[in-house]
Amino acid sequence: MAKDCVSLAAVSLLSAVQQAYFAKQVENARKKYKIATPSVIGSSDFERIFRAQQNLNEFYPLFLVVLWTSGLFFNQEVASVFGFIYLFGQHMYFIGYAESTKGRIPGFKIGIAMLLILIILSFFGITDCMVDKYFDINIAKKISKLFS
Amino acid sequence: MAKDCVSLAAVSLLSAVQQAYFAKQVENARKKYKIATPSVIGSSDFERIFRAQQNLNEFYPLFLVVLWTSGLFFNQEVASVFGFIYLFGQHMYFIGYAESTKGRIPGFKIGIAMLLILIILSFFGITDCMVDKYFDINIAKKISKLFS
Amino acid sequence: MAKDCVSLAAVSLLSAVQQAYFAKQVENARKKYKIATPSVIGSSDFERIFRAQQNLNEFYPLFLVVLWTSGLFFNQEVASVFGFIYLFGQHMYFIGYAESTKGRIPGFKIGIAMLLILIILSFFGITDCMVDKYFDINIAKKISKLFS
Repeated sequence: MAKDCVSLAAVSLLSAVQQAYFAKQVENARKKYKIATPSVIGSSDFERIFRAQQNLNEFYPLFLVVLWTSGLFFNQEVASVFGFIYLFGQHMYFIGYAESTKGRIPGFKIGIAMLLILIILSFFGITDCMVDKYFDINIAKKISKLFS
Repeated sequence: MAKDCVSLAAVSLLSAVQQAYFAKQVENARKKYKIATPSVIGSSDFERIFRAQQNLNEFYPLFLVVLWTSGLFFNQEVASVFGFIYLFGQHMYFIGYAESTKGRIPGFKIGIAMLLILIILSFFGITDCMVDKYFDINIAKKISKLFS
Repeated sequence: MAKDCVSLAAVSLLSAVQQAYFAKQVENARKKYKIATPSVIGSSDFERIFRAQQNLNEFYPLFLVVLWTSGLFFNQEVASVFGFIYLFGQHMYFIGYAESTKGRIPGFKIGIAMLLILIILSFFGITDCMVDKYFDINIAKKISKLFS
């Protein structure tokens, strides 16, 4: 079973390290812009970094869900590649947002595109598995039979 | 293995789409009430929508955990049904909170009730499995033997 | 399969209950310091409790990922023990932060140490499994052969 999800686990572990990295950047920004905890306002530079991290953190569970549902029900390697591109987009978003409000847009677009792809892959994978389980019809097999 | 969790995966995928929908609503509210990022204050209408999304986002990982633990250790279909009702409650909470602070209460109550049920189911399922694994006693089987 | 992750599920369920407990404490603090929703400012006592809960909530998905990756790819029982210590550290962090800003530090250090350990265990477990899967080399077996 472990081998069926090892690359999903690798992408997940990388994403966890990335989340820790973003949190660390907020802590560093607190020192740089002298914003003492628990305050979160006072400098628009700090506020952008804080909001970038907050937004990426908000989307993190959603990403994990669609990474694993697409990986387990569609294809592990395909899901892992799109998941990896998503993490790259998150990095662009964070770096861009830290510089300016507009700077977040390219990374944001990559992120949204990857999430949409993973949602669509999950949808097809799960639908196929549900139809197979509850109605005993395997669509994927039927299609491949048509062409054989 | 995939078939043992396909309805949990379906509820999880639906919940991910719902989270994306809530995030989109906050973005729309930013435009409507003219609250530029990274600010999150300035209009009590915006603040309610923002806080509704934040609260639902906060509970999201907790929900995923109890959905999957109850589904894997108690019963997949039972957990999925309560999980689905939870998502319905979340929707009521969001719509209600966007209208007024008091409007969040009915959806909130549904959500809390569903989480409690899933926690209790998980507790029984996990306890039974742990006792079976570490003490080699299968409670569920013993009870069913009593009645056979 | 369920038995291979039952103690991870038990730690996860406990962590979900803990998250619910933290959220409840914020609600109680709202009443005590008379901060009506949706506001989150106005009393530094409330702000500390709110920020403590927010921070622990932020790290929650990250914790779940490394708990499960280390548990599934390294060792279930080892991961569960470190996971349990992490939850204990979270509790110390919350209680400490509620009292004073400095009070969060001991719990914070425990939390960071546990996350680092779980990340390292996950890294070794996943690397070993990936090398075995994609290059057909099982490092763990080779090492144990050297000593036999």
